[in-house]
Amino acid sequence: MNDVEAINAMVRQAAEKAAQETNDEPEPILVGDLNWPITCELRPGLEGAIACGTKIGYVNGSKGWLIYRGINIFELAEKSSFEETSYLLLYGKLPTRKELDNFRMKLAGYMPIDETVLAVLKRSPTARVRDTHPMTALGLCVLVLGMLDEKAEDTSVENEREIVIKLIAQIATITGMIARLRSGRDPVEPEPSLSHAANLLYMMTGERPSPVAERIMDISLILHADHGMNASTFSAMVINSSLANAYATISGAIGSLKGSLHGGANERVLYDIEEIGSVDNVEAWFQKARESKRKLMGFGHRVYKAYDPRARILGPLAGKMSENNPEIKRLYDIARKLDGMVCAELGVEKKIFPNVDFYSGIVYRALGIHAGMFTPIFAASRISGWGARFLEYLENNRIFRPRAVYTGPVREEYTPIDRR
Amino acid sequence: MNDVEAINAMVRQAAEKAAQETNDEPEPILVGDLNWPITCELRPGLEGAIACGTKIGYVNGSKGWLIYRGINIFELAEKSSFEETSYLLLYGKLPTRKELDNFRMKLAGYMPIDETVLAVLKRSPTARVRDTHPMTALGLCVLVLGMLDEKAEDTSVENEREIVIKLIAQIATITGMIARLRSGRDPVEPEPSLSHAANLLYMMTGERPSPVAERIMDISLILHADHGMNASTFSAMVINSSLANAYATISGAIGSLKGSLHGGANERVLYDIEEIGSVDNVEAWFQKARESKRKLMGFGHRVYKAYDPRARILGPLAGKMSENNPEIKRLYDIARKLDGMVCAELGVEKKIFPNVDFYSGIVYRALGIHAGMFTPIFAASRISGWGARFLEYLENNRIFRPRAVYTGPVREEYTPIDRR
Repeated sequence: MNDVEAINAMVRQAAEKAAQETNDEPEPILVGDLNWPITCELRPGLEGAIACGTKIGYVNGSKGWLIYRGINIFELAEKSSFEETSYLLLYGKLPTRKELDNFRMKLAGYMPIDETVLAVLKRSPTARVRDTHPMTALGLCVLVLGMLDEKAEDTSVENEREIVIKLIAQIATITGMIARLRSGRDPVEPEPSLSHAANLLYMMTGERPSPVAERIMDISLILHADHGMNASTFSAMVINSSLANAYATISGAIGSLKGSLHGGANERVLYDIEEIGSVDNVEAWFQKARESKRKLMGFGHRVYKAYDPRARILGPLAGKMSENNPEIKRLYDIARKLDGMVCAELGVEKKIFPNVDFYSGIVYRALGIHAGMFTPIFAASRISGWGARFLEYLENNRIFRPRAVYTGPVREEYTPIDRR
Repeated sequence: MNDVEAINAMVRQAAEKAAQETNDEPEPILVGDLNWPITCELRPGLEGAIACGTKIGYVNGSKGWLIYRGINIFELAEKSSFEETSYLLLYGKLPTRKELDNFRMKLAGYMPIDETVLAVLKRSPTARVRDTHPMTALGLCVLVLGMLDEKAEDTSVENEREIVIKLIAQIATITGMIARLRSGRDPVEPEPSLSHAANLLYMMTGERPSPVAERIMDISLILHADHGMNASTFSAMVINSSLANAYATISGAIGSLKGSLHGGANERVLYDIEEIGSVDNVEAWFQKARESKRKLMGFGHRVYKAYDPRARILGPLAGKMSENNPEIKRLYDIARKLDGMVCAELGVEKKIFPNVDFYSGIVYRALGIHAGMFTPIFAASRISGWGARFLEYLENNRIFRPRAVYTGPVREEYTPIDRR
């Protein structure tokens, strides 16, 4: 027996030892091909499974409620700001004026970003930033920020909350940088006197936004800040549950949000609307889509079985933006008509209504934002919810480890290669 | 009313419309402070929840079984190679000789890596690669590979499987690069004539490994390739379920594996053993650890309530490696004694036994690998399981979206800032 054969023989001995010591107790976990009863229901996508308790937010799908920390989204959208809403999500209460001022100052202080990040975006391979999915660039930059942070590996709740606040500021800055570089222009430094919403628009467009544009962006950031256990939020919680650091957690959430079933839907709503082209074509397009069972982008939601409250807000705002803008008016009119037809035909019977993505794309286009940047803007808002939720879970952390039902064989032999 | 007030008024109108249209049906989903019955059990970490069906692998915790595609881990560890095991996990069957040769050639062809990746690792901020967590560097490189791949956004199963095969090769290459750079040496080009296990050792150490070292690394890669719904595998599945691309998926899984509750345990086993220092101190150290309820690194497992089959294999291999190496012998003797004490005191009563991490660190140290590289090596193996599982889920994809039980209030008012 040579050395390598001796190693293999040791493995065989370990197997024999295991066989001797294996108990004969019945196994409560379920295997498809053994004759044990299956008592757990398998619902794809963990639909209905309870992952945790939370005090952060609540979505009541049949009533069409969205609540952050007890406060209805309509109240927050009307009266609050993204900074205040982020504070509310992270700390569980509305800030006093002093607390809000401090929080705004902290965000403004974090907004200017280490020059390394711009260097990474500008240099090879990210000289190709125009060709690269902006969400890939954003996820990469978040990992780079982690490499630059000497406290990155401190996974205490306190330190990770500070990192989340920094990332609320810096994801906005990076989003602005990517928008500028993609359109072949130089980045614009953040302007500390502006609100977060105004700064985000300013860093993307290079122009100070009007009060109306700023307010509408602020509302949109509030509306997108948290939404229960969506896939990117859940990704953040699962990644962080191993006590990975906050940068790895948020980079992974950005990766998930990027997916076409998640963050990219509002961009594709615009493509559908462009495909329809004019109000006169809506009816024929819709009937054809129904006949071919084409998925209607921006309609229907796993949780909402009522009209999405965020779409209730963004729809009229899109209408407002269309008033003096014929191009937006054309898009908006098509969207309104399609909305009406879908609600009439599918709303009562199938509970299919517009979701947040249906009108947000029109709003962003009206704000002068390129469709490729819609998902990074989503991330620039949802970072608050990601942070609040993974931090809440971290306080009573337990690593996520669900089970799979194994439906394959269990006693296959290893057939030698010459007999396969 | 000015323009901004008009915007806010629109939000208010949307709220009123929502209130009029809200139905009064009872809500089946559960809120802590409303008087609806809670029928789902909340188990932290989704313990026991069923996330999917699978034919890839099976862990039977009470029997101490680990099975890949029907074949027991002991058989695979003794008779198979990492390349063959990866093929088995990805394609669901053992390859014919021709299929295996093609798969090996494909891996060898993918191993040389775009020079951009080395440039990223060498240049700012990754000139600081010595100070950076190697898993952060690895996750970053995977995103860079995505930026370089023109087909990165093709999320078909076929294309993503090809990316996984490429990443099996390139994560090994990057692991080698990081190991070299961290020790201040230049990377070593992959050698296509070597096996995957030998190449990984060669690229890290710069020396061709002995047959025994190669075989032991091969066994360790096989043992770590898949293990049910662990947090990094589950992270990959959750991220990918939004149809994010394979690079974002694997980068996120790397981020999760990095966490101290997941991939980093074998490194900390070594620290415990070093702290114990000598065989004579084991008993006193163990009693003190029990009294202070200190967590014993490398013992106990969410799923295994029996001796981990991987530890059954790695334990004797660590012993073998200790035969001509006094330093390894010292570590191994301490580990063996601690293993025996824990099994005697906690095995029967509490079902606490050594897990895979308990002996793998000693094995890797015996192979001349720095403790900081243990988790990247884990990733270089687990990439096969990550890929097999997210691809299997992708074939019948449904985005992951579990629920949270909301335990906060639902009718809080928005208190104006001056009254807080």
